[in-house]
Amino acid sequence: MKIITRPSQKKLQKAMQRPVQKLKRIRKRVEPILKKVRKNGDEALIGYAKKFDGAILHELAVPDEAIESSEELVTPVLREAIDLAFANIKAFHKAQWEEPIKIETSPGVLCMRKSVPINRVGLYVPGGTAPLFSTVLMLGIPAMIAGCRQVVLCTPPNRDGEVDPAILYAARRTGIHKVFKAGGAQAIAAMAYGTESIPNVYKIFGPGNQYVAAAKQLVSLEGVAIDLPAGPSELVVLADQTSNPAFVASDLLSQAEHGADSQVLLITESKRLIKEVLKEIKIQLAVLPRKDIAARALKNSTAILTDSKAEAITIINDYAPEHLILAINEYETVSPFIENAGSVFLGHFTPESAGDYASGTNHTLPTDRAARAYGGVSVDSFVKKITFQKISAQGLRKLGPSIEVMAAAEALQAHKNAVSVRLQSLKTPDEGETEPER
Amino acid sequence: MKIITRPSQKKLQKAMQRPVQKLKRIRKRVEPILKKVRKNGDEALIGYAKKFDGAILHELAVPDEAIESSEELVTPVLREAIDLAFANIKAFHKAQWEEPIKIETSPGVLCMRKSVPINRVGLYVPGGTAPLFSTVLMLGIPAMIAGCRQVVLCTPPNRDGEVDPAILYAARRTGIHKVFKAGGAQAIAAMAYGTESIPNVYKIFGPGNQYVAAAKQLVSLEGVAIDLPAGPSELVVLADQTSNPAFVASDLLSQAEHGADSQVLLITESKRLIKEVLKEIKIQLAVLPRKDIAARALKNSTAILTDSKAEAITIINDYAPEHLILAINEYETVSPFIENAGSVFLGHFTPESAGDYASGTNHTLPTDRAARAYGGVSVDSFVKKITFQKISAQGLRKLGPSIEVMAAAEALQAHKNAVSVRLQSLKTPDEGETEPER
Repeated sequence: MKIITRPSQKKLQKAMQRPVQKLKRIRKRVEPILKKVRKNGDEALIGYAKKFDGAILHELAVPDEAIESSEELVTPVLREAIDLAFANIKAFHKAQWEEPIKIETSPGVLCMRKSVPINRVGLYVPGGTAPLFSTVLMLGIPAMIAGCRQVVLCTPPNRDGEVDPAILYAARRTGIHKVFKAGGAQAIAAMAYGTESIPNVYKIFGPGNQYVAAAKQLVSLEGVAIDLPAGPSELVVLADQTSNPAFVASDLLSQAEHGADSQVLLITESKRLIKEVLKEIKIQLAVLPRKDIAARALKNSTAILTDSKAEAITIINDYAPEHLILAINEYETVSPFIENAGSVFLGHFTPESAGDYASGTNHTLPTDRAARAYGGVSVDSFVKKITFQKISAQGLRKLGPSIEVMAAAEALQAHKNAVSVRLQSLKTPDEGETEPER
Repeated sequence: MKIITRPSQKKLQKAMQRPVQKLKRIRKRVEPILKKVRKNGDEALIGYAKKFDGAILHELAVPDEAIESSEELVTPVLREAIDLAFANIKAFHKAQWEEPIKIETSPGVLCMRKSVPINRVGLYVPGGTAPLFSTVLMLGIPAMIAGCRQVVLCTPPNRDGEVDPAILYAARRTGIHKVFKAGGAQAIAAMAYGTESIPNVYKIFGPGNQYVAAAKQLVSLEGVAIDLPAGPSELVVLADQTSNPAFVASDLLSQAEHGADSQVLLITESKRLIKEVLKEIKIQLAVLPRKDIAARALKNSTAILTDSKAEAITIINDYAPEHLILAINEYETVSPFIENAGSVFLGHFTPESAGDYASGTNHTLPTDRAARAYGGVSVDSFVKKITFQKISAQGLRKLGPSIEVMAAAEALQAHKNAVSVRLQSLKTPDEGETEPER
């Protein structure tokens, strides 16, 4: 971890630079995979499973019985933990559902908006060293609350061609019955185009490596919606003399262990704290199973000594972190000024890992400065809001002339005419009266 | 306009196919424009204004005085119409603002979400035969309600190097002071990268031709958010024996006049109605200033004779139209089943042009089947929703062990450790008690 003190703008910009992503180059390598899946469907996926996952598959769908019986294969203590996380995530996401809006903007002009589920969604759950059942919860619960009719889940199989029971249990809890053994860019292609086994979807969610990210970019250019632009994970911790160095170190490390391209920033006015945190990092890092990964991530990472909280806030908003921990007593003096961040953790007893698993907030969050324009995944991400309007004959009588004026000014005569023919009909008493005022 | 009767799935798919967009090819032509603006800034924009708009510019910014004095240059009748539209659009969009959410998901575990404006947004307003001030309202009003701090508007100048006063008046009404004379892909590049005059933004909104659409796609791959994937405009009218053929014809034509690549579908169970509507189209089309454009759009368009309302609903949801008019008495029996549409117009006196200008709903809507996954532009499009969480020491005592179990199951030891160090500290009475329960 580098340390920079009251940095110049130039030094700051360098510290805030994310580890380079090579998506443009990777898109070129992913294109043939997408094409092959589009052309050969299941056959292509079975081939890629052999090549990339080392798994011999006979069918892609996880059998219903495996999903049903997953409960028994998960240890009771893990099951209980998943159930608690499920309840918290559900409680917070349920509150995000928007009731219909109905406004009479002018007399006789009624405008409405309602949330309608995206009826075909695809969730991608990466493989790797361990089953990421938490991602299933974070995507499956809002999909369930939104009421998405068809939810497809793709995840790479292990070498035995199996999917971990914890993933299947989380899927079952969120009402997902369509789980397929497919990973990487090929899984994204399958959900975008559909194959014999895997239904195509309208929107694809979920994290993944750079191949998955590049594939999501490419299918988004072809009309399939995606949740968020992807990038490596990030954390900023704002600390002061009230912070506990061991806590801060543990948070920085929890982010650093995600991947060698993760990035963490420690921002503080206290030189002493930086020293103590670095000491704690050394101690805690030594015993971590993923210490090599975390150590590499720390090389991308910086401790920034600032002169004031105001300076720290400016840096935070400029960096736009995915995760932000305000590890200070007086977090309430800072949080109202946070403009760009994915999810914010307040105080000393709110570690980022709480939000990763169980507090209730979503852990699918904007990275790589996307927090300037994007929020994290929520129930909103699984619905679209359709507007409706109903104008009565009386309402059009009053509003119509203004529409005619504006349409004419934009040289759109047919737009004007759509109002004029109606207003003319209202001048004939017979026709005007047959229009029910509803 | 083609007519198809009780069509086979194959025929239907053909009728529902959108006029081809060549964005992939156009992206290649747009790339050098983006590069040049990135490199040469204002100079490149001034060059492109000469080349594409035939305008000699000395500066890109519209002077403040021009914005201030625009009011006097707009006719009182147009000003009043714009003011009425402004009031209606504002009333409906204000209702879209979401108040903060605050949920205690478990004892001592508080989760919150609040809307925070995207602080730098760019609005693109296309040029063409007439000033599209309505687009300024549709983008500027939600930006104003969201509270976006910096709103940049780019629009191509006319041959005299001027921007129409109606555009400036609409900008002024929505509190926009930064208006720049730049059009096409080069304007998108300017807002994405920034130039000497034009500030870069985090999200770009607005319609445009295929060059603009391709430029938006390209910058979106580089981390600048965009509002919606773009495509030509579309309308479906569902009609029955209660419909007025002249009204229906006027609506179809109002959409058709947008561009030769527009598309309209008429869906009905009534053969007679199709005949009458086609007759009316002929009459109304003959006197339209943009009749050539509309006639070409009608060539992409189809009247579909169905057997039932249920069949019609299936077709509508499959087509996912940008605009849908339910031009029938019993629209209430249909509208609850609409799953995929941008904006829906109910009954006989609700022409689409009302929503284009003044009813209050937004006219920036998903095209080319994007309505399956996207809603139109709204206040939501100008904010991101940031989540916050605060866990008390007591809250972590209860929730922590579950997080530890899940983190261990995902082989993320440092995630677990961030909870463990805190729980351990709570075992020491001294430290546990110094943590304020806030």
